[in-house]
Amino acid sequence: MTDAFPKTARNKVKRMPERGHYDAATIYPIVDAALICHVGFVLEDQPFVIPTLHARQDDTILLHGAKGSRLLRYIQSGGAVCITITHVDGIVLARSVFHHSINYRSAVLFGKGSVIEDEQAKLQALEAFTERLIPGRWQDARTPNAVEVKQTTVIAVQIESASAKLRTGPPGDEAEDYDLPVWAGVLPLRQIAGAPLADPQLSPSVELPDYIRDFDRRS
Amino acid sequence: MTDAFPKTARNKVKRMPERGHYDAATIYPIVDAALICHVGFVLEDQPFVIPTLHARQDDTILLHGAKGSRLLRYIQSGGAVCITITHVDGIVLARSVFHHSINYRSAVLFGKGSVIEDEQAKLQALEAFTERLIPGRWQDARTPNAVEVKQTTVIAVQIESASAKLRTGPPGDEAEDYDLPVWAGVLPLRQIAGAPLADPQLSPSVELPDYIRDFDRRS
Repeated sequence: MTDAFPKTARNKVKRMPERGHYDAATIYPIVDAALICHVGFVLEDQPFVIPTLHARQDDTILLHGAKGSRLLRYIQSGGAVCITITHVDGIVLARSVFHHSINYRSAVLFGKGSVIEDEQAKLQALEAFTERLIPGRWQDARTPNAVEVKQTTVIAVQIESASAKLRTGPPGDEAEDYDLPVWAGVLPLRQIAGAPLADPQLSPSVELPDYIRDFDRRS
Repeated sequence: MTDAFPKTARNKVKRMPERGHYDAATIYPIVDAALICHVGFVLEDQPFVIPTLHARQDDTILLHGAKGSRLLRYIQSGGAVCITITHVDGIVLARSVFHHSINYRSAVLFGKGSVIEDEQAKLQALEAFTERLIPGRWQDARTPNAVEVKQTTVIAVQIESASAKLRTGPPGDEAEDYDLPVWAGVLPLRQIAGAPLADPQLSPSVELPDYIRDFDRRS
């Protein structure tokens, strides 16, 4: 697995470079903490950005692809995608409007993809997707049969280049503004899971498993 | 303001078309409920996707732009961007792995942008950004002076085409799977605000205003 990505024109954090990081130890936890990513591709000079589930295996990002989709056609034509993952961690309230900001963690990944054809590799990818939704699910739910595996397209994107950008901590105001009688600080934001909603068609004899009841979703 | 966007090759929801919507009454609340969007643009055939704050005014999306940024250069060269907004509302746990999914609301917008030069229009845009972070803030914080307004680049993207895609409700399983002893349903996810964290340099005489204490962040 890659330790760090060289800083190049493609992945360099230009605005606020002190917030940029290029090591996998910073980038990959941001990738892994998110349920979805935003994938960018290009068709006839028009960029498209679509949200989709992802999973990571070492330096590879796995994506679901619909047969005949624009993304799949683009990847099969050899185009490089951009995969971006963002967590919003808080609203930064400065004394001046100018210094308002967001606390966030984002990762931007670049690479080319290919379709996974091998049935065993596809099954492993589906297990990775399912376990990312909620750990423990793969062992509990009915696993895919051969027809379902065939119907699923899995794309593997090899990460060639990447960077992360983070902002944390309190606001930074102009020196002369610190005496203003304006509340300043951070309003933290986080994603939480609510109480599980049973399918209306669920048999009353099926109990809620512990791995769902105890699931603590944090992004 | 636009009522609905014509369905074209660019904005058509191809996969699961029954989840696609083209009316502003569906699309714009999705845009407005999010703090950030993901903007896609292209440089030398490489797509880039960056997260950024946004605000909407009728059929226009306002973005902050850093001077000299790649996005700004692209927009000034006349390139069309793709702006995507996604809310993850829940994890859909089906009896079979194959039918696992996510409940979500996403909006995909296409258009070209221009830089707002007029100082009054820039101030209005900054007010829109600030009030989207937390309503009431513009009246409380120190508003931007002429130098700060000059340092800020605001981009207005006219929405030419758009669509939304939504999934709601319980899982849909294969008929023969409904008798499996597997818990099925939805684990709802939402974004919440935690207790405000005061800036360590905040004067103890400044009290937390009601508009922050009572703020209920829901995406």
